[in-house]
Amino acid sequence: MSISLNTQQLAALIGSSKLEGEFRGTIHGIASLAEATSTDLSFLGNPKYAASVPGSKAGVILVPADYAGQPASGQAYLRVAKPSYALALVCAALEAKLWPKPAAGIHPTAVVDATAVVDASAHVGPLCVIGAGASIGAGVVLEAQCLVGVQAVVGEGCWLKNGVTIADYCRLGARCRLQAGVVVGSDGFGYEPAGGQIHRIPQIGNVVLEDDVDVGANTTIDRARFSQTVIGRGTKIDNLVQIAHNVRIGRQCLITAQVGIAGSTTLGDFCVLGGQSGVAGHLTLGDRVQLGAQAGLFVDVPAGGFYNGTPAIPIGLERRLVVLSRKLPDLFKKVDSLVASLDA
Amino acid sequence: MSISLNTQQLAALIGSSKLEGEFRGTIHGIASLAEATSTDLSFLGNPKYAASVPGSKAGVILVPADYAGQPASGQAYLRVAKPSYALALVCAALEAKLWPKPAAGIHPTAVVDATAVVDASAHVGPLCVIGAGASIGAGVVLEAQCLVGVQAVVGEGCWLKNGVTIADYCRLGARCRLQAGVVVGSDGFGYEPAGGQIHRIPQIGNVVLEDDVDVGANTTIDRARFSQTVIGRGTKIDNLVQIAHNVRIGRQCLITAQVGIAGSTTLGDFCVLGGQSGVAGHLTLGDRVQLGAQAGLFVDVPAGGFYNGTPAIPIGLERRLVVLSRKLPDLFKKVDSLVASLDA
Amino acid sequence: MSISLNTQQLAALIGSSKLEGEFRGTIHGIASLAEATSTDLSFLGNPKYAASVPGSKAGVILVPADYAGQPASGQAYLRVAKPSYALALVCAALEAKLWPKPAAGIHPTAVVDATAVVDASAHVGPLCVIGAGASIGAGVVLEAQCLVGVQAVVGEGCWLKNGVTIADYCRLGARCRLQAGVVVGSDGFGYEPAGGQIHRIPQIGNVVLEDDVDVGANTTIDRARFSQTVIGRGTKIDNLVQIAHNVRIGRQCLITAQVGIAGSTTLGDFCVLGGQSGVAGHLTLGDRVQLGAQAGLFVDVPAGGFYNGTPAIPIGLERRLVVLSRKLPDLFKKVDSLVASLDA
Repeated sequence: MSISLNTQQLAALIGSSKLEGEFRGTIHGIASLAEATSTDLSFLGNPKYAASVPGSKAGVILVPADYAGQPASGQAYLRVAKPSYALALVCAALEAKLWPKPAAGIHPTAVVDATAVVDASAHVGPLCVIGAGASIGAGVVLEAQCLVGVQAVVGEGCWLKNGVTIADYCRLGARCRLQAGVVVGSDGFGYEPAGGQIHRIPQIGNVVLEDDVDVGANTTIDRARFSQTVIGRGTKIDNLVQIAHNVRIGRQCLITAQVGIAGSTTLGDFCVLGGQSGVAGHLTLGDRVQLGAQAGLFVDVPAGGFYNGTPAIPIGLERRLVVLSRKLPDLFKKVDSLVASLDA
Repeated sequence: MSISLNTQQLAALIGSSKLEGEFRGTIHGIASLAEATSTDLSFLGNPKYAASVPGSKAGVILVPADYAGQPASGQAYLRVAKPSYALALVCAALEAKLWPKPAAGIHPTAVVDATAVVDASAHVGPLCVIGAGASIGAGVVLEAQCLVGVQAVVGEGCWLKNGVTIADYCRLGARCRLQAGVVVGSDGFGYEPAGGQIHRIPQIGNVVLEDDVDVGANTTIDRARFSQTVIGRGTKIDNLVQIAHNVRIGRQCLITAQVGIAGSTTLGDFCVLGGQSGVAGHLTLGDRVQLGAQAGLFVDVPAGGFYNGTPAIPIGLERRLVVLSRKLPDLFKKVDSLVASLDA
Repeated sequence: MSISLNTQQLAALIGSSKLEGEFRGTIHGIASLAEATSTDLSFLGNPKYAASVPGSKAGVILVPADYAGQPASGQAYLRVAKPSYALALVCAALEAKLWPKPAAGIHPTAVVDATAVVDASAHVGPLCVIGAGASIGAGVVLEAQCLVGVQAVVGEGCWLKNGVTIADYCRLGARCRLQAGVVVGSDGFGYEPAGGQIHRIPQIGNVVLEDDVDVGANTTIDRARFSQTVIGRGTKIDNLVQIAHNVRIGRQCLITAQVGIAGSTTLGDFCVLGGQSGVAGHLTLGDRVQLGAQAGLFVDVPAGGFYNGTPAIPIGLERRLVVLSRKLPDLFKKVDSLVASLDA
């Protein structure tokens, strides 16, 4: 991951001309403010770390346009609208070097059904398995050991890391990015007790990921009982998330790690679910709903609210109840002394 | 997933003759009440959706025997004891078409040890690995990229989706169904601090799944420290569940997604654990115990109770405490004004 | 898993000469106190089970040095400092028989890049994939279907079970032990909203596991946005754990199943996180911090504390609040009757 960039090259990558101070060397790495050395690029992405800027030894620091300080001697600041996004532009250039797109073609150890259609520009890595009637679009990358099932579709420009499963009949739109171990299209968890037995309910629907959906490592998305489980365009899902059958998630939602969404629940657009939170089944959440980490939501909620706790309630009330609950020892004492004073 | 069924064919599949109304066409799909069109089959499986029946455009609707309404013009009702189960019978017929049983035989890319015994009627998919002394029963299906370890046993009629691990010495009974990425037989998490080091405790037991156990995608079941981790007959486990070493689960339990059960805990029969709930180690739960979503149980409980919250308590009390906790702001005000009135 | 050991052999394995009673036969198995038969070895590892010792039918029982009882007729006790650790020594001897180290060499079905360096003493199992410039150290075991990415390093003596991913550029120290399905080096979950789109922030750092780190099945550890995600020497991680980008975990921590640690958080040494607990991002935890099961920590904490609940607070206070919360019904009644008596 060696870098070699001077300030002019950095400014060009970022598209900023607001360079302050004099850094005459070459940047060879990226590091946090506290850990950076004189040949590192750093950035003030989170206001929490503002106090670390003045003492940082970084050669170049990306700071917000309105940041008040000045660079130290031999150091440069590049002022940008969003330091975190500006850094991402630098990182994207490096990423392209670290992960050059693999050459088109099918690895000789891949097992590809004769009726599958693999675009000539796609890369199919070693030991992948592609089922009958499957379709692999233009520019797709399947790293090693992936499985694309019968009649499954992987849209153009998708990049699947190793060991990803796209089960039979499931469909990915364009430019989806899936991390290792993702399972798209496992059976929904549907059982019906009858006659002293638990009968499995066949799960004959599929999963549809619309364009630009990202999915984190070892996340599982179940196929619908019938019809479709749908993840909307531009939604990003973190690691070890569970999405049950017939869930429908809107556009550009952020679903963080270890979240669980139970069956047949619908989320609007732009929702944000905190880590380890859960949403019960058969619910409807409006657009822009937010859920705190570890919260558990059990009721329908309209657009725009922020909920927390288990069972989840509006976060303002939840915060207030947490504060009050810590005063319970005092309250109990107060009531006891009231009772005592009245008994006296 | 194209269907083509008239009402007589549907009635025959379901075993009901209680047909009302006149639907003269052919059913081509299955959809929810709200989304169904005139060539779809729908059903009233959850009373929550009863109000959606009258307006549904579905050609045929499966309704409970005592449902009060009447079909619209050109629409038919099929009255059944359990609409959800009746739908499952239709879906099973479709499932058999979507997932015909693969032909018997071992794919040439599978790596099968010479001492493994694979029944002639079993199907071993591409890139599977089968270890020394392993046994694969009659009619078993191993989809692609599965691993069956040394001396492991997969009982007759089991169906393992791609990428399933049955580690060395573990045993599956008959007709188990495992989704992609399941790990049966990972090491238990056992360590012993001694002499400033953390020593690993070898985990030399195995895992036994009895007959008719289903396991969801990327779920992990640890092998016992010694003896066995046991999942009882007919128990169904959802995705991303963690079952620790030496756990014993009874028969016909339902373990929903992201549940964790810590080491050496024993569950009775017919238990139901809600999503993301957890059970501490070395506990004993009686038969028919239920645990709410996200609950955390830390004590032994007898048969039949329903527990909720963290730490989990009987759900009646838990529900009451939740209601009261939301009245804390009022209570604090009330007590403050009592104090003030007495001080006055 | 057949054993055949007499008391002399057991005493030698354990390094104890404190043998009491007369067991003249041969031990053929290991079982819990309650389940052991006359040819089983058992142990009193957890004081909770002390009452089960006198009635146990085990042929030989490992008991603490200060255990008060005496063996039954035909039964022997071996007194040891730590029965659980002593049992581990016996199990280690058995483990070596159950899992003999596989022979050195590369399976013919493995796909190994010509520029990868595989030590001659390493074992590379069937259907593994090893990328360009990767390095596999002395005595390493890669079981079937593992992936070691471009320029990744697996240190000497590591043992990777089947289906493990060590993604590009990640590094493992010596003697790490990874269970099936582990993903080391998935992308961090980094996105930046800008211009109505959600932009992916490239994740160009890596993951470093220091020496003697163990990782449980299907656990995911994300690569750093830049620099490194680090797991300290001797730390042990259970199944289905999520460790986000840029997390740094100290030495000899125990991270139990289904824990989630959000991005850029730092843990000291000897921390213990209970099952299903979570730690928010950008936090610093001191050495020896403990977190209860299902707890959620949202603030920095100094060395040595034990926290519980969501949001997590010192466990003494948390235990007290739980007790008081269960008395809320009484408190509400008391206050109502105070109000009534004052109104009267």
